[in-house]
Amino acid sequence: MDNCIFCKIIKGELPSYKVYEDELFISILDIFPRTKGHTLVIPKKHHRWVYDVPEFKEYWDCVLRLTNSMNKSLSPDFVSYVTHGLEVPHAHIHVLPRYKDETSFVPEIKKFTKEEMEETAEKIRKAFKV
Amino acid sequence: MDNCIFCKIIKGELPSYKVYEDELFISILDIFPRTKGHTLVIPKKHHRWVYDVPEFKEYWDCVLRLTNSMNKSLSPDFVSYVTHGLEVPHAHIHVLPRYKDETSFVPEIKKFTKEEMEETAEKIRKAFKV
Repeated sequence: MDNCIFCKIIKGELPSYKVYEDELFISILDIFPRTKGHTLVIPKKHHRWVYDVPEFKEYWDCVLRLTNSMNKSLSPDFVSYVTHGLEVPHAHIHVLPRYKDETSFVPEIKKFTKEEMEETAEKIRKAFKV
Repeated sequence: MDNCIFCKIIKGELPSYKVYEDELFISILDIFPRTKGHTLVIPKKHHRWVYDVPEFKEYWDCVLRLTNSMNKSLSPDFVSYVTHGLEVPHAHIHVLPRYKDETSFVPEIKKFTKEEMEETAEKIRKAFKV
């Protein structure tokens, strides 16, 4: 899709804080993070909704491995998942590590420096089991 | 778990609007629905978090079949998923059919009559592919 921001990130035409990548999926930090480590898991092929992705089971397996990696590297209280998808019409799963005071359904958007974002991405990436 | 409300529903000790049940999972309407057809998918065995469920892939496959059933029977604009889990400490996935004017991240809780709840559960149940 020519005008899809996620397709552009996948093609490397836009920068991202990449956490994980395989043949089918890419995981990047959300640039409007609601918690530290708020990550999006995105299919490389353009689909409208999460449930349109033919590799649905593999998609959630990728989310599970990301969760394990977050639990190891960021020590959150728990991890929550949200699929919504009206902002960008390319399927994506929000994976949110939750810490004390960030347990409401939808925490406010936070600001992190470029260095903090890179450090967080690196932590999760290192703990990611392929 | 003796004091777990979901364990009691699973054992039949508390009533519910049941949509689907198999060996591993049960789907029931949320009694505090945020949209018409707001459903919870729950593992029969007590686990704390969704990612603690050993049959994680089967769990999401159950969610996918529920989604297909909702799309057929309720014709929503789209379907969204949320896992959070601080209210009841037994893993559950929220599956929310979304309609016009109910597209915000977390729509307000709505009131439906017992008859409306039963009718909605029956519609989804009938369209459920096993």
